[in-house]
Amino acid sequence: MHVFDTIAAVRSFLLSERRQGRSIGLVPTMGALHEGHLSLMRRARAECDAVVASVFVNPTQFGPGEDFARYPRDLERDARLAASAGVHAIFAPSMPEMYPEGCATFVDQGGEAIGRLEGQFRPGHFRGVLTVCLKLFNIVAPDRAYFGRKDYQQALLVRRMVRDLGLPLEIVLCETVREPDGLAMSSRNQYLDPAARRQAVCISRGLARARAALAQGERSAPRLADLIRSELEAAGPCSIDYVAVADPETLAPVETVERRAVALAALRIGGTRLIDNCPLEP
Amino acid sequence: MHVFDTIAAVRSFLLSERRQGRSIGLVPTMGALHEGHLSLMRRARAECDAVVASVFVNPTQFGPGEDFARYPRDLERDARLAASAGVHAIFAPSMPEMYPEGCATFVDQGGEAIGRLEGQFRPGHFRGVLTVCLKLFNIVAPDRAYFGRKDYQQALLVRRMVRDLGLPLEIVLCETVREPDGLAMSSRNQYLDPAARRQAVCISRGLARARAALAQGERSAPRLADLIRSELEAAGPCSIDYVAVADPETLAPVETVERRAVALAALRIGGTRLIDNCPLEP
Repeated sequence: MHVFDTIAAVRSFLLSERRQGRSIGLVPTMGALHEGHLSLMRRARAECDAVVASVFVNPTQFGPGEDFARYPRDLERDARLAASAGVHAIFAPSMPEMYPEGCATFVDQGGEAIGRLEGQFRPGHFRGVLTVCLKLFNIVAPDRAYFGRKDYQQALLVRRMVRDLGLPLEIVLCETVREPDGLAMSSRNQYLDPAARRQAVCISRGLARARAALAQGERSAPRLADLIRSELEAAGPCSIDYVAVADPETLAPVETVERRAVALAALRIGGTRLIDNCPLEP
Repeated sequence: MHVFDTIAAVRSFLLSERRQGRSIGLVPTMGALHEGHLSLMRRARAECDAVVASVFVNPTQFGPGEDFARYPRDLERDARLAASAGVHAIFAPSMPEMYPEGCATFVDQGGEAIGRLEGQFRPGHFRGVLTVCLKLFNIVAPDRAYFGRKDYQQALLVRRMVRDLGLPLEIVLCETVREPDGLAMSSRNQYLDPAARRQAVCISRGLARARAALAQGERSAPRLADLIRSELEAAGPCSIDYVAVADPETLAPVETVERRAVALAALRIGGTRLIDNCPLEP
C-alpha cells in the first residue's frame, strides 16, 4: 500500500490507475480508524478497482472549543488497518497541502437541511466538511466516495453538493457499524471512560426503543422522540443537544411518521459529544 | 460543431475526446459573443485539442435590478461565431440543467480581494460567478479555461478558487480586445446609444492617460487615479462606481506604484455599467 502526503503524488498514482481503465473509490476519513471506516473500505474495494483512503483531521470542520487539538492521530496504525481492508493508497496530506497560505475559498449550502441539528449546534461545521470533501473529490476524482450513515446529515449534504455542483461521482451511503452492545462506532468513543462508555449505549437503545414503538403502531413523532429522550435521561447525567424525528431530506421535524423518516440524537456525556440515528420506516 | 444542452450529452462527447487522449479547453461565456470571446476561443483552439464554449446567462451573478432579463441572447448567432473561431462544441444548458430544483450549494471566498471593487458594488456577484465556474469546470473537466483580462477581478478570484480547491486545470488570462477607439469589447456595449458609445471611450482613455503619466515618472497612486477620474468626468454625465490603483493580488489600494499594480474603473453611462482595467508596470 502507498502512503502519499502530497497532492501531486496521489494524482500521479491515480493518473496511472486511470490510464489502465481502473475505477477509483475514495473513503474520506479523519483517521483514528475503526471497524466503521474499515467496512467502508471493504465496500469500496468490492466495488472499485483502486481504493484511496484519505486521512486528514480537517481543522475547518471543528468549532472553537471542540476537540481538534486532541483528536486522535496515529497514521501508522491507520495505515496498517487500511492495508488490511484492501486499500491501495492512503492520502494523508499536511495542513498546508490542503489549506495553502492565503487559501480562502469555501463551499457552503443554503436550504433548510444544513442549518438544522448538527448545523445548529456546530455552526460552520458543514461548511468545513463540504469544503474539504470537495477538495478531496477534486484531488482524487473518484468514481464513488463512501460515507457512513452514522453521520447522516453530513452524507445528505455531501450528496446534495455533488448533485448541485455537477460532480461526476456517486456518494455511497453505508450502514452504521455498531459495538456488540449497540453503540455506533466512532473515533470519539475512545474519549469515554468505562462509566461513560456503559452510559453511551443509551443512544442506540433509545433509537431501538423508538423503532420498536413504531413497529407497534406509534405514529406520533413527539411521542417517539420522548421515548428516545427518556432513555438518554435515564442512563445518567448528560447534556442532550437534540432528539429529532425528521424528514429524511429536509431534516425538518415531522408530526407523524406516515412515511419514511429518520430519528436522530446528539448528546454529550462528560466532555464527549456523540451522535447516532436510525431510519424510521412505518 | 456540436451544440449540447444537457450535462449528459456534453460529458459523453468529452469522454470520447478524452479517450482519444485529446486535451480539453473551456471558454465560459454568457453568449452575446464578440471579438473578445472569439480571441479566447482561438487561443484555446491553438492550445487544446478540443474546445468547448459554454453559453449560459447565469442568474446567480446578477443582482436585483441588474440586466439579467434584458441581457442579449442569440444562440444561433453565437453558434455561428463560435464555429468560425474553431470551437468544437457549444454547451448551452437550460436553467434547470445548471440549477436543478432545490439546488442550494454555492462556493464563495473569504480574503480581501472578493469584497473590493466589483464585490462592493455588486454584492453576491462573485459568489454567483465562482459557483457557475465551478459547475462548468466539474462538467467539462477542462485542462485549461480561458478568461478575459477585462474582468480582471473575476479572473483573479477564479484562479484563486482553482488553487484553493485543488482543481486540476489551468486558468489562462487573455488580453482585453478593444474597439478601434480603445473601448474594451463587452456584450453590454450594445446597450449604448451612439452618444453614450462615443462617451464610453473615456474609460480606456483615462487608463491610457494613467499609463502615460506612469511612464513619465508619476508614482503617486491617488494622482494616477485622479487622472483617470478627470477623463471620466470630462467626457459627459456618468456615475463612477470606482476608480482604483490597486495591488494586483489583493486589490487593496496602493499609495505609490513602485512595483506592478493595476488600475481599474467602473462607471455607468445612462443605464449601462462598464468596467475596464490595465496593468501599471513602473
